[in-house]
Amino acid sequence: MLTYDMSDTTKPLYQHLYECVKNDILSGKLRINEKMPSKRTLADNLGISTITVENAYDQLMSEGYMYSVPKKGYFISDISEMQRVPQQVSRVLNIDKGRKNTDVVFDFSSNRTGRDDFPFSIWAKLVRETLSQKEKELLTVSPCEGIFELRQGIASHLASFRGMNVDPNQIIIGAGTEYLYSILIKLLGTDKTYAIENPGYKKLDSIYKSNGISCKHISMDEKGMKVDALAASGANIAHISPTHHFPTGVTMPVSRRYELLSWANETDGRYIIEDDYDSEFRLKGKPIPSIQSIDAAEKVIYMNTFSKSLTSTIRISYMVLPEHLANLFFKKLSFYSNTVSTFDQYVLAAFISDGYFEKHINRMRLRYGRKRAKILEMIRDIFSDNECNVIENDSGLHFLMEFNTSIPDDVFQKKLLKKKIRITSVTSCYMENKVPDKHQFLLNYSGIDMDGLGDALREIKGLI
Amino acid sequence: MLTYDMSDTTKPLYQHLYECVKNDILSGKLRINEKMPSKRTLADNLGISTITVENAYDQLMSEGYMYSVPKKGYFISDISEMQRVPQQVSRVLNIDKGRKNTDVVFDFSSNRTGRDDFPFSIWAKLVRETLSQKEKELLTVSPCEGIFELRQGIASHLASFRGMNVDPNQIIIGAGTEYLYSILIKLLGTDKTYAIENPGYKKLDSIYKSNGISCKHISMDEKGMKVDALAASGANIAHISPTHHFPTGVTMPVSRRYELLSWANETDGRYIIEDDYDSEFRLKGKPIPSIQSIDAAEKVIYMNTFSKSLTSTIRISYMVLPEHLANLFFKKLSFYSNTVSTFDQYVLAAFISDGYFEKHINRMRLRYGRKRAKILEMIRDIFSDNECNVIENDSGLHFLMEFNTSIPDDVFQKKLLKKKIRITSVTSCYMENKVPDKHQFLLNYSGIDMDGLGDALREIKGLI
Repeated sequence: MLTYDMSDTTKPLYQHLYECVKNDILSGKLRINEKMPSKRTLADNLGISTITVENAYDQLMSEGYMYSVPKKGYFISDISEMQRVPQQVSRVLNIDKGRKNTDVVFDFSSNRTGRDDFPFSIWAKLVRETLSQKEKELLTVSPCEGIFELRQGIASHLASFRGMNVDPNQIIIGAGTEYLYSILIKLLGTDKTYAIENPGYKKLDSIYKSNGISCKHISMDEKGMKVDALAASGANIAHISPTHHFPTGVTMPVSRRYELLSWANETDGRYIIEDDYDSEFRLKGKPIPSIQSIDAAEKVIYMNTFSKSLTSTIRISYMVLPEHLANLFFKKLSFYSNTVSTFDQYVLAAFISDGYFEKHINRMRLRYGRKRAKILEMIRDIFSDNECNVIENDSGLHFLMEFNTSIPDDVFQKKLLKKKIRITSVTSCYMENKVPDKHQFLLNYSGIDMDGLGDALREIKGLI
Repeated sequence: MLTYDMSDTTKPLYQHLYECVKNDILSGKLRINEKMPSKRTLADNLGISTITVENAYDQLMSEGYMYSVPKKGYFISDISEMQRVPQQVSRVLNIDKGRKNTDVVFDFSSNRTGRDDFPFSIWAKLVRETLSQKEKELLTVSPCEGIFELRQGIASHLASFRGMNVDPNQIIIGAGTEYLYSILIKLLGTDKTYAIENPGYKKLDSIYKSNGISCKHISMDEKGMKVDALAASGANIAHISPTHHFPTGVTMPVSRRYELLSWANETDGRYIIEDDYDSEFRLKGKPIPSIQSIDAAEKVIYMNTFSKSLTSTIRISYMVLPEHLANLFFKKLSFYSNTVSTFDQYVLAAFISDGYFEKHINRMRLRYGRKRAKILEMIRDIFSDNECNVIENDSGLHFLMEFNTSIPDDVFQKKLLKKKIRITSVTSCYMENKVPDKHQFLLNYSGIDMDGLGDALREIKGLI
């Protein structure tokens, strides 16, 4: 009869017993198919309760060390498989995240929202209200396209800010534009040919590539993507940012928008993906109508995000699908769960419907406009006309500086990085290597710290 | 000379002028390449300021209606392209979301978190603290894998709850398990053959399909996925839920876990995706070691979620990659932005590190355990042994009821739906059509309202 010392343990008795039996199985003391004593017998023998033995046996059975045969009793399993597999050893992992710890002080290469530029106190108030008033809704699964309140808010925002006439049922909300791209690729198909702007947003090329798609890179002129090059590429889908092209800042004129629509209307299966990512920040004049709003043939997929108008760290974007694609989405992809927390969706919906979003955009447009003007003034003060030419059109959160220098762009970037200044050249936004004829660099200004800007610009001037 | 009435408008003057000129261009009154008056001349003529004319001209140029030639002046553009495209008409869209409005009162088919089961007041407190103390961090872009504080919290949770020894650098956070699946497919490749459990979670099949992968469906026995069938399928990757299989509830014994590891170790490129989705809710005994924790050869990708332990509406899941796959992830896919808001990541990190998560799980385990016992008692009271047999193993948030009935499962489901009761049969979780030899149905109990449960069960009894 099995005998174990049940007094010498600080653990729960059932766990102690479990470990004793397990050790005897692993050491071979208890052999395959050996019959175990009944729970009652073992309990009596060890002077413990039957429940304790039952718990230990249950654990051993659920882990596969024992099995039971009805009306016959308990037996030891064949654990030979367990021995063949190498055992885990604890060790330090060597994971390389590919990040260089460059302690950048001045970053012209990307936009971020500054601490004073996010409406923290209003947000805190809305979170508090939402958590106390919407308990049930917060725990109810969001429909795949996002909650109605947020889609309604977005539709009314698009109506008032972009003059767009959109049905909330066309709107799909997702955790960031990149996520929505991958949904869109699933919707339109990986057998289509996609065209993106060159120069352009290189990440877009990586996203398509990681979805198994090799993109056509279509060159730009001063009006945006060239339509003849697009037509010649054989692409079905043109992915563009017409309001404020990255990196050149080109705003596509209405004539080119109509040309693109003409191209899309020539045959079935052609679409335009219109990424309107920082359209809220046209600083002067009326915004130019979106292609979506002049499209009558269901050819345009409109995309936008709260990354620029609120903060990119909140990860909420949306797309407006034409009717037939919306229907296809609900037929084909509605099994996907929405990727945005209901908590965030309800807070943002309240932020829009209570009028805070409109006020916030207006305030930020004013603030960014002033900041931009001040930066442009500093550039004029520090650089001579011969050294630096600014290329901008009162739109968006970045503009270009063109330097009169003979230093290659990559060397220029590296030298500045040594001085803790990060800057991106337009050349580096070309999909294929390109020798620059002009030395143009991006200035993303929304998150720029004005205090150190003068010094940073003077460092750049010293390099030219 | 162009003349417009500038007094008869409520709009800003520049916008009125813009519209007048635009209308004349669209109507053909102003012709292609026609020269426009200088800003000064037009301003004098209309009795308005030059700035107003400049703003109107800027708008017309940025929209492509006019162009300027340096030192020559302003001209009307060729807008013929604009005419070729059909004009948008406002209309009601006909979008079918494929949802039947069945006003379900009793839903056994899915788990949701009840209002009293989410820690609202603690959450509200942590959100308040996070918003006031972490302004800078909240606006700083999350690394692609998620913020360190949350990954560290998850690692310590896995250590204490699952006895797993995990480096926070192996952990990737994402907006839901479904999203992480798609990242994983990009990481492992669409050229691999994936195997899933049959019966199983049908959505998984849809997710793989929408990523261009046709899965092998591997049958189950009482220990989980059959290893011989898996080996015969030619699959490289086995996607399983060993702790608590959906729908059967099978807990895979340790012996089968080792068998699967042996299979994975036979050749290069084989992996096991271990979905541990409701492992926190093993109600009796010690949890069974995860396959990840007994894997010494970097063969297991471990996945888990806060959907069951907190609420699915918060959309936060994570995966633990073996070292070489973590390195591949950072090399190949680190351009992807993390899909979870930093706001939510910091709040959840605080929830874990302040010890609230552990307390919450322990409380919920107790509460769900009691609820489960009460439901099992009600089932015993209402059904005779001959009518209903319960299949459960003290694990997870669902168990099975097997009814002694001759009604086909789909008819059974439809009849109950008419009585506002939704229930899912195990048969319907088979990847291919299967005629049931047993009539087993899922009872997801975490969100069940106890008050109406007796009536619902009696409705079912009436049907048998």
